[in-house]
Amino acid sequence: MHRVKCIVSYDGSNFAGFQIQPTERTVHGELEKALKKIHKGLEVPIAASGRTDAGVHAVGQVIHFDTPLSIEAERWPRAFQGILPSDVNVRSAAYVDSDFHARFGTTKKEYRYRVLASKEADVFRRNYTYHFYHPLDIEAMREAASYVIGTHDFTSFSGSKTVVENKVRTIFEFDVLEAGDEIVFRVVGNGFLYNMVRLLVGALLEVGRNKKVPEAMKDILARKQRGAAGKKAPGHGLYLWEVGYE
Amino acid sequence: MHRVKCIVSYDGSNFAGFQIQPTERTVHGELEKALKKIHKGLEVPIAASGRTDAGVHAVGQVIHFDTPLSIEAERWPRAFQGILPSDVNVRSAAYVDSDFHARFGTTKKEYRYRVLASKEADVFRRNYTYHFYHPLDIEAMREAASYVIGTHDFTSFSGSKTVVENKVRTIFEFDVLEAGDEIVFRVVGNGFLYNMVRLLVGALLEVGRNKKVPEAMKDILARKQRGAAGKKAPGHGLYLWEVGYE
Repeated sequence: MHRVKCIVSYDGSNFAGFQIQPTERTVHGELEKALKKIHKGLEVPIAASGRTDAGVHAVGQVIHFDTPLSIEAERWPRAFQGILPSDVNVRSAAYVDSDFHARFGTTKKEYRYRVLASKEADVFRRNYTYHFYHPLDIEAMREAASYVIGTHDFTSFSGSKTVVENKVRTIFEFDVLEAGDEIVFRVVGNGFLYNMVRLLVGALLEVGRNKKVPEAMKDILARKQRGAAGKKAPGHGLYLWEVGYE
Repeated sequence: MHRVKCIVSYDGSNFAGFQIQPTERTVHGELEKALKKIHKGLEVPIAASGRTDAGVHAVGQVIHFDTPLSIEAERWPRAFQGILPSDVNVRSAAYVDSDFHARFGTTKKEYRYRVLASKEADVFRRNYTYHFYHPLDIEAMREAASYVIGTHDFTSFSGSKTVVENKVRTIFEFDVLEAGDEIVFRVVGNGFLYNMVRLLVGALLEVGRNKKVPEAMKDILARKQRGAAGKKAPGHGLYLWEVGYE
């Protein structure tokens, strides 16, 4: 058996998220369906770096699977392309050691969140950005983001479905970038709790609207209480951008 | 009655085109449904600069309608926004003279056509660009485009549903632009026959692949024969960009 690592992108708009569900269209489901076809009926389970919610996109999701086939690494993307629907794409593939694990080997994840900061809606970006009408104070959001960098207990920024016990994570970088009429939040950390990025962005947008002071981020973290962060930003602005391994 | 001119954008991906049809979802249908709500059940017909096909997008489609309501011009977009689905947007509105006509008053139209010129597919642009794997010769396409500028009989570049008698049109500008990993065709003329832009782009792509020489455009025009242009480029790369009036 050979272990294959793939980098996968998907447009989350028409998916009920990543993780397989019996009746809904999911990225996981489409990938395993494609693998079953490539393997002429053999079930080939995949493991991914983590799940993403309905509407959430990926530029660099990572999966792995084990295969008895001996296909050249660079031919795997083409094998998938002929079978996968057009909203999922296997961007690259490589053979890896059998101790590589897409989920348990991660050391770093980068997420990005795109906000369309404009009075006017854009029909072409309605599924790819969160349209925010109100003016946003960039400098205040940058200050707020700076308080998140470092190692903290992120209980206050965890969604209700969080199951892990240990809620301590380290954020390496948290940038607030301006790109034309968009504001892009870029956050890199060693791991993220369920809904953590959307709760972080939601709180930063409150700061940007001057409904919270930047220092409020410190208080929210210190409270270690689910719900303390306020409202999460919607899923369709979020992208799993890159996953790093040892 | 007051005549209102609106600039409308739409993402054509989930529409069976612009023109109203009894059972399909169309932009025209959505706009008239919204107007009926705004007018509390009164049917308010619209006229547009022209129709667009299934999958074709618009950044600057122009429509007009007559209304008994006295709403400030700048409030019309908001009135529509609350009712229209998120893939249609009324960008602006203005009161115009009763002799303005969205269809019959046009003097100029601009279309753009986006080609993703890349080996790798992009899930996020699958509905917004035509993904073209083969390398393209930009200079050859520019030369080919130059032969189209001017006044010609465009019978060879007319689709099978073309009903107008007079097939002479004037092309003012035809640019082949490079924008990152995209090639954008920008064509401005006094009017366009059914499928004309898609047939022009289709022929230019043949030139770009060196399957036709640039001068072939002259021969195709001279033949004045439907079908002479070859295959039309797919609808989802096409945008009605701007419509001009006297």
